[in-house]
Amino acid sequence: MRTTETAIDAGAGAAPSAERRPHIVIVGAGFGGLSAAKGLAGVAADVTLIDRKNHHLFQPLLYQVATAGLAPNQIATPVRTIVRHQANTRAILAEVGGVDLARKLIVTGGRRTPFDILVLATGATHAYFGHDEWAAHAPGLKSLEDAVELRRRVLTAFEAAETACDPAERRRLLTFAVIGAGPTGVEMAGAIAELAHRALTRDFRAVRDAKARVLLIEAGERVLPTFRPDLSAYAARALAKLGVELKLGSAVSAMDDQGLMAGAERIEAATVIWAAGVRASSAARWLGIEPDRAGRVTVQPDLSIAGAPDVFVIGDTASVVGADGRPVPGVAPAAKQQGEYVARLIKARLAGRAGPGPFRYSDFGSLATVGRRAAVVQLGRFQLRGTLAWLFWCVAHIYFLVGFRNRIQVGLDWLWSYLTFERGARLITGEDQAARALNSHIAGTCDCPSL
Amino acid sequence: MRTTETAIDAGAGAAPSAERRPHIVIVGAGFGGLSAAKGLAGVAADVTLIDRKNHHLFQPLLYQVATAGLAPNQIATPVRTIVRHQANTRAILAEVGGVDLARKLIVTGGRRTPFDILVLATGATHAYFGHDEWAAHAPGLKSLEDAVELRRRVLTAFEAAETACDPAERRRLLTFAVIGAGPTGVEMAGAIAELAHRALTRDFRAVRDAKARVLLIEAGERVLPTFRPDLSAYAARALAKLGVELKLGSAVSAMDDQGLMAGAERIEAATVIWAAGVRASSAARWLGIEPDRAGRVTVQPDLSIAGAPDVFVIGDTASVVGADGRPVPGVAPAAKQQGEYVARLIKARLAGRAGPGPFRYSDFGSLATVGRRAAVVQLGRFQLRGTLAWLFWCVAHIYFLVGFRNRIQVGLDWLWSYLTFERGARLITGEDQAARALNSHIAGTCDCPSL
Repeated sequence: MRTTETAIDAGAGAAPSAERRPHIVIVGAGFGGLSAAKGLAGVAADVTLIDRKNHHLFQPLLYQVATAGLAPNQIATPVRTIVRHQANTRAILAEVGGVDLARKLIVTGGRRTPFDILVLATGATHAYFGHDEWAAHAPGLKSLEDAVELRRRVLTAFEAAETACDPAERRRLLTFAVIGAGPTGVEMAGAIAELAHRALTRDFRAVRDAKARVLLIEAGERVLPTFRPDLSAYAARALAKLGVELKLGSAVSAMDDQGLMAGAERIEAATVIWAAGVRASSAARWLGIEPDRAGRVTVQPDLSIAGAPDVFVIGDTASVVGADGRPVPGVAPAAKQQGEYVARLIKARLAGRAGPGPFRYSDFGSLATVGRRAAVVQLGRFQLRGTLAWLFWCVAHIYFLVGFRNRIQVGLDWLWSYLTFERGARLITGEDQAARALNSHIAGTCDCPSL
Repeated sequence: MRTTETAIDAGAGAAPSAERRPHIVIVGAGFGGLSAAKGLAGVAADVTLIDRKNHHLFQPLLYQVATAGLAPNQIATPVRTIVRHQANTRAILAEVGGVDLARKLIVTGGRRTPFDILVLATGATHAYFGHDEWAAHAPGLKSLEDAVELRRRVLTAFEAAETACDPAERRRLLTFAVIGAGPTGVEMAGAIAELAHRALTRDFRAVRDAKARVLLIEAGERVLPTFRPDLSAYAARALAKLGVELKLGSAVSAMDDQGLMAGAERIEAATVIWAAGVRASSAARWLGIEPDRAGRVTVQPDLSIAGAPDVFVIGDTASVVGADGRPVPGVAPAAKQQGEYVARLIKARLAGRAGPGPFRYSDFGSLATVGRRAAVVQLGRFQLRGTLAWLFWCVAHIYFLVGFRNRIQVGLDWLWSYLTFERGARLITGEDQAARALNSHIAGTCDCPSL
């Protein structure tokens, strides 16, 4: 039993030297946490990477899982596999419940684990601006479970439209409303429009005849507001070409299970998708710190929290002003850079060297795709749109995807979808909810004698 | 609206001729229902194929989804896509609730649809021999949801073992019991053993050190009882070589959430999988017919039910004695042949020709795989085992898989797994249950200070 116990015990027990190796705990295996863990490879410390999922998720492609283009496993990789070759690092599947800052303990389930250095990289979740009751009507898109649930709703709406006899109900079933016109909202609206107007028309008669309606609802005055105005205008035109109806300057004020109010207009829609806002994770509450308006922890220039130089918060759950005086945006490249920065700082500190200066965010640019051969790319002063931007977007996403196998598979799937207009993961799954939901649609619509 | 209504209305409305075309309803898009629908392509009738899932599932490979080798979408194809090119056929996602035999109506949700000819191909589900309470402890393997749930349980057990400190609890977490040594049980046990002893050892320290235990429990005296005794003996040796412990002549008499009783032995096991028995679907109840012991509808030699020559029952939910006087087994080839037979019979009847004679089952043989380069094949007097049988098994399964894309993907995945020993779909998903289940494991085991 002795060997087994030692193997399990990554903390003090596993250290061969008499001196105890410091224990670095990283919570969250997203872009931030993973890059911190990778940056700590080979450091004379025990690194524990905790996540409540067993996989790192490539969130930028989550909308393709929600619209049946990719399968869940193609954009996720087990965290264990990623850190397999780092002898000083172990991955743990557990949900963190809190932090005891005074005693330097992290709480998971009924267990308290001591840490010397803590990196919180717990990300963000959807925020409904004080309307948490909207969550049931308009799910967001953060996890694989979210994506599979959205896929179920989208595909079930098409199925139900096929057997609805009341024309108004059929129109409602074929109306898809995406709220929020940032990159995720634009990508979702474009992908649903391609699904409705291209991929599914061969299989669904009602879709072919009645035409689906895809709405993109945005409170602001333009789509992709973080991009340059001419790229926003291009994206709006590309969306219109795909058949997406844009509702700009329309704030959503009410929602129920039949539809929503956008500005002064009532829209009957069976499927509503939330892409309008996020709120940081519970890290601030764990640390007993007053969060900012977005729920984030405001950190020092070195990403540690005030009064606790060994506790770092990075990524979407941190609020920091970069060395250039501008707030660092909540995007994947920023989280990655923060992870790398914290790893460098910890390494220097453990080696007794002077650490790097304050965190500095390098903005390499932004990409967003609308659909087939339509994307926008903004890299510094350089910008691209159309087919070339779309190819650049495809190559960049395959490049940043984790895992050789996933890259090959996603590449082949995209090629196949491009050539055939098909979608490769058109599955409705989830405990027979699908058919039940559908039967209730059918029951609710009419007593027409034929299916 | 008129065109749309007509398109929706597949029954009377869509018929161009003055005479009403007969309406054939097929319930179930498994092997039986799908082959019946395909056989009716081009017939002067309206065919409606109803399933409560939107996909046809290739059940023979379901165990590979449960053991993280394949992704769900690789063994499923939308029913609509399969029948897309059959102008007289439409696919409907709905759950059938009953049949009104007297008035020839099929009930889905709140709707009643008239049929002229009905084919019930609704398959089978797990049977716990009067112990329905075992379902929660030992899930079976019939749907994609079942497979994803089993995958969650198997992978979560490995994760929990990694952080368990109590050696007895760790052993329990690393003990997997498969009940029933038919093809599904043998394939599951072999696949879990390969996962535990090969694929996961690089990623899980506890698995490497403590060794997982995989048990195959069978009440009968040999594995694969429908195969020839020497092939059973080969399969038993191949399982033993993979590290599977065989418990033959051991009936399971009790089960709880910690383990089970097999014969007189108590086995502590965190993961128990049911592969011991099936019971037919509710078709007999819908028809008001007394089912046989396995819940099946006993049908006439032409697969229709007594007194209703327009109502057929085929596949796992039918009990029929073949023209050779032997009962037709509940296997995929039999269901396919029955579907083809019924289609031929209906075609002949609609054309006013004499139909085929009584149904005759052609037994082309059976295959089962144990693992890497180990399978058994029995085709008439011809038999194979080992590498050649395994290659034959791989080729046959890819050949029978529906969809060009799935064939390519599964072929590539198998090649990749064969070369690398990796598994491509190691995802734990499902509403954060994973981490919660794990926390309860952790909390239950001990207060050891380190994770």
